[in-house]
Amino acid sequence: MTALRLHHFPICPYSRKLRLVFAEKRLDVTLVPHEPWRRDDDLMALSAWGEVPVLEVEGHALGESLAVAEFLEERFTEVKLGGKDIWERAEIRRLALHFDTKFAREVTDLLWRQKLIYRLKRSGTVNTAALRAGQENIRAHLDYVGWLASERNWLAGDHLSLADLTAAAHLSVLDYLGDVPWETNADAKEWYARIKSRPSFRGLLGDKIPQQAPADHYADIDF
Amino acid sequence: MTALRLHHFPICPYSRKLRLVFAEKRLDVTLVPHEPWRRDDDLMALSAWGEVPVLEVEGHALGESLAVAEFLEERFTEVKLGGKDIWERAEIRRLALHFDTKFAREVTDLLWRQKLIYRLKRSGTVNTAALRAGQENIRAHLDYVGWLASERNWLAGDHLSLADLTAAAHLSVLDYLGDVPWETNADAKEWYARIKSRPSFRGLLGDKIPQQAPADHYADIDF
Repeated sequence: MTALRLHHFPICPYSRKLRLVFAEKRLDVTLVPHEPWRRDDDLMALSAWGEVPVLEVEGHALGESLAVAEFLEERFTEVKLGGKDIWERAEIRRLALHFDTKFAREVTDLLWRQKLIYRLKRSGTVNTAALRAGQENIRAHLDYVGWLASERNWLAGDHLSLADLTAAAHLSVLDYLGDVPWETNADAKEWYARIKSRPSFRGLLGDKIPQQAPADHYADIDF
Repeated sequence: MTALRLHHFPICPYSRKLRLVFAEKRLDVTLVPHEPWRRDDDLMALSAWGEVPVLEVEGHALGESLAVAEFLEERFTEVKLGGKDIWERAEIRRLALHFDTKFAREVTDLLWRQKLIYRLKRSGTVNTAALRAGQENIRAHLDYVGWLASERNWLAGDHLSLADLTAAAHLSVLDYLGDVPWETNADAKEWYARIKSRPSFRGLLGDKIPQQAPADHYADIDF
């Protein structure tokens, strides 16, 4: 069995995506926690920009969570999360990238990155205009998630895929911060409740960091 | 031969990445131009968020440029841009994602998106603090490009890959706007000169939009 070591920050959407991939694929992985607001020489030795997540595997240090997920999909093929033909793969990748780029730019970066990363890194500085924009933008994005979930069984089609895990990872860190207005879209909420009750999600629901307590409902399966 | 139609905006890094992929793979593609600041019902019919690039192929509309690039890599295998083994693929994807996420967040979004997309969409509104931050951030990123180019033959290793095309696509729209301080890193400049002189780049160098003239040196191979 290949030894896998994942360097991660518990309340990070990109790290969480990979923890969900490991759990869904039933792979053993050693988790090494880091705090992104601290200078971290161990991490700088593994990654040019000193950022999590990084996967250590067979003497390589692999970065960028979607690249790592693709690596795991190619290497560990028993449980498939990336689609079974070229069209499914295109749709799963489209949605995974949608959440990691457009959703990240319009929501995650304006809320999570401001509230958690920048605040702790820059001693308290938060851009309140960014927070307001993020709180506004998340509604259209939640409607999109709800629309996909109501048209399909899972976000990219019939099966749970990397698209669901990527979306859930982003929403889970926003939910930790109490920033998801679930009441605005019942379909999105039902989809998230299904993901949240999977065994792969348990580790995430137990996360807690001393700098920021989770929102009250964060670990509840019925929220 | 499969008919391929790419909906694109000429001065868009994600659209340009795909035009470079098509040209390097020597695939015929019909280009359909759009203006991202205009409401566009044709595009809304192909893409939930109405954004370019979108590839029409065999009755499917594929979105998110990296997902489209992966599709093209799987489908058209004669010229390889994605690596020949699992480790090369991981490194190429890592860098492609690095430019489409971190570089985009810290540079492209602060310069290109502000100056071109937001200015034209929101009638003149530009965030000058964002511009200053982008102009500052691009220096470290250019040093990273220069470091990769000096350590390796191309950014991800021995061969030209999607990593080079992604980086060059971002830098090319910034260069159109005159926002790349090439004089700060000779290795980055030498790498870009090599890419810029490839036949695949010719189409990009001929682009011009009426709303914004290109910088003086934009189309020069010797810059």
